[in-house]
Amino acid sequence: MECQLTIVRTEQKKEKPALDKLGFGVHFTDHMFTMDYTEGKGWHDPQIVPHAPLTLDPAAMVLHYGQAIFEGMKAYRNKAGKVLLFRPEQNFKRMNRSLERMSMPQVDGEFMVDALKQLVALEKEWIPAESGMSLYIRPFVIATEPCFGVRPSHTYKLIIVLSPVGAYYANGMEPVKIYVENKYVRAVRGGTGNAKVAGNYAGALKAQAEAKEKGYEQVLWLDGVENKYIEEVGSMNVFFKVGEEVWTPALNGSILEGITRDSTIHLLKDWGIPVVEKRISVEELYEAYTKGQLEEAFGTGTAAVISPVGDLNWNGHQMILNGEKTGPLTTKLYETMTGIQYGEKEDKFGWSVEVSE
Amino acid sequence: MECQLTIVRTEQKKEKPALDKLGFGVHFTDHMFTMDYTEGKGWHDPQIVPHAPLTLDPAAMVLHYGQAIFEGMKAYRNKAGKVLLFRPEQNFKRMNRSLERMSMPQVDGEFMVDALKQLVALEKEWIPAESGMSLYIRPFVIATEPCFGVRPSHTYKLIIVLSPVGAYYANGMEPVKIYVENKYVRAVRGGTGNAKVAGNYAGALKAQAEAKEKGYEQVLWLDGVENKYIEEVGSMNVFFKVGEEVWTPALNGSILEGITRDSTIHLLKDWGIPVVEKRISVEELYEAYTKGQLEEAFGTGTAAVISPVGDLNWNGHQMILNGEKTGPLTTKLYETMTGIQYGEKEDKFGWSVEVSE
Repeated sequence: MECQLTIVRTEQKKEKPALDKLGFGVHFTDHMFTMDYTEGKGWHDPQIVPHAPLTLDPAAMVLHYGQAIFEGMKAYRNKAGKVLLFRPEQNFKRMNRSLERMSMPQVDGEFMVDALKQLVALEKEWIPAESGMSLYIRPFVIATEPCFGVRPSHTYKLIIVLSPVGAYYANGMEPVKIYVENKYVRAVRGGTGNAKVAGNYAGALKAQAEAKEKGYEQVLWLDGVENKYIEEVGSMNVFFKVGEEVWTPALNGSILEGITRDSTIHLLKDWGIPVVEKRISVEELYEAYTKGQLEEAFGTGTAAVISPVGDLNWNGHQMILNGEKTGPLTTKLYETMTGIQYGEKEDKFGWSVEVSE
Repeated sequence: MECQLTIVRTEQKKEKPALDKLGFGVHFTDHMFTMDYTEGKGWHDPQIVPHAPLTLDPAAMVLHYGQAIFEGMKAYRNKAGKVLLFRPEQNFKRMNRSLERMSMPQVDGEFMVDALKQLVALEKEWIPAESGMSLYIRPFVIATEPCFGVRPSHTYKLIIVLSPVGAYYANGMEPVKIYVENKYVRAVRGGTGNAKVAGNYAGALKAQAEAKEKGYEQVLWLDGVENKYIEEVGSMNVFFKVGEEVWTPALNGSILEGITRDSTIHLLKDWGIPVVEKRISVEELYEAYTKGQLEEAFGTGTAAVISPVGDLNWNGHQMILNGEKTGPLTTKLYETMTGIQYGEKEDKFGWSVEVSE
């Protein structure tokens, strides 16, 4: 790979949006990172350039056969002015697993983390320093060859765009209502569920829309084989506090290996709370609920960090969790995780990576 | 919808490629059709414009969450100079089913067939009149809104590009070697298998690559639940001649509803051959093979029309079909179907649609 990173600065910086109007992934910074892949040549021409539209052939394979993968991460700026990334090397490791599953070429993770740091340093003033706000980072890789043969593309583009995002919980954490999905399936073993692949997300929209019509914010996905075992909630991993334990579905090939999931498990174990990774049937969960043992439930993901679940509907069986209020463990996890992310709490696992100027 | 189709002709026509160098989906004609969708306004601005690159925001949803569907069909030009489409209304009906599954807006099928006819008429001289050659037609719809929220896009683009394609069987029909896939899964009930969705194709590349390493050209996909019942072959539907019957997997929600599949069933029934649409386990197929009843196997799809299977490998059990030669029924189906497509055989079902100038 040609490792020389070229930087072309924009001639006209954009006006920054008002902090109370940030939303999620709507506004973009002045620059982006791009790098090209050509079969036989490998990755080449890494560069930081002004954020601009892409020119794609209408036959570009990504538009037809969905060879596209992405990552999601954040940069945080704290009161002291420090800019921090959270376990960025994990994102590029997972990117490589996603690329492998989609028959796409591997990237050099170390080079990518370094390039990302340079991009974030350049865009430092775009990172809101307010509590809960951050700079969302979206690395993605797309197949660009214009050809209708059903085979892997011979050319790809890796791009990183940055978007300042508002606080996920602008009005405090509000537990969500979840519908246990029994018609649509997100993923099945042997499929692409454990890769961060574009198609997984489009395929999930219909179930989400139907749940919304029923008054629920998201769905709880069950396994594709038996339609019985819990996999994910919306586009997050899911955890349940059952008595003194915390349960989460074991990674089985169709569940995404969340980095927030992994961090949550580390924190819980560090606190002496037993974490049980296993196959969890909805029946078993409902049984725990009827016995009064299901105390809290929450999703984990980059956007929300920790998202409390207040209400679960399984075929009409309703489970109300912690009186539809955010539970104490959920709150502690959220505060600890975001505290580490903003460099305000002890980072005993060495997760935070500082971006120097 | 605004139904006024605008036509902007190219100022410089491209040089046409040599007929022996056409390939599949590599060369494109002078013009394309485009139409935009905006939430609250519907589809608007249908136009035929010079074939040109697209400008897409790097945050366009199609590149991240895979909201993209497509169709594939062909225009044929026969010796008498007639230009014919094959059941085009079926493609736009299926397009609407795919759009629905992906939470994307419906199109007006009649309007689309009419617009397509105008586009094909304009590009008539791009259609090779040689035997087996045709003009491949690729309508597709992509989500264009630049936003990272995981929800349906509020804007879309529908595009039709045209590509002159060479004969699929330049050296006569050659039966392919197929590996029965037991690790990867293409689709599962409740998923997106019966929609013509971008992500289905990228997800299938890895299995295809591994089959090639083992010396096979394609895979035979089994169902995602039990890994036992036959679904598709490569990106085609599949048929088996067993004794006096022809078997094909029944549509079950995870199998694509092929238009060539449907046409094949019509022809066979018309010939008095019983077609059995049912769940077919590989075991049952292998049993028929060991009894000497499995006489022919073939895939059906737009690109190949009919593709003979000569060799099936199921966990080391090898099935050699018709001495690895194209069987008589496979040949008859290919000749009849292409004869109708080129307007050279009786079209008793009224499948051919003439494009007038």
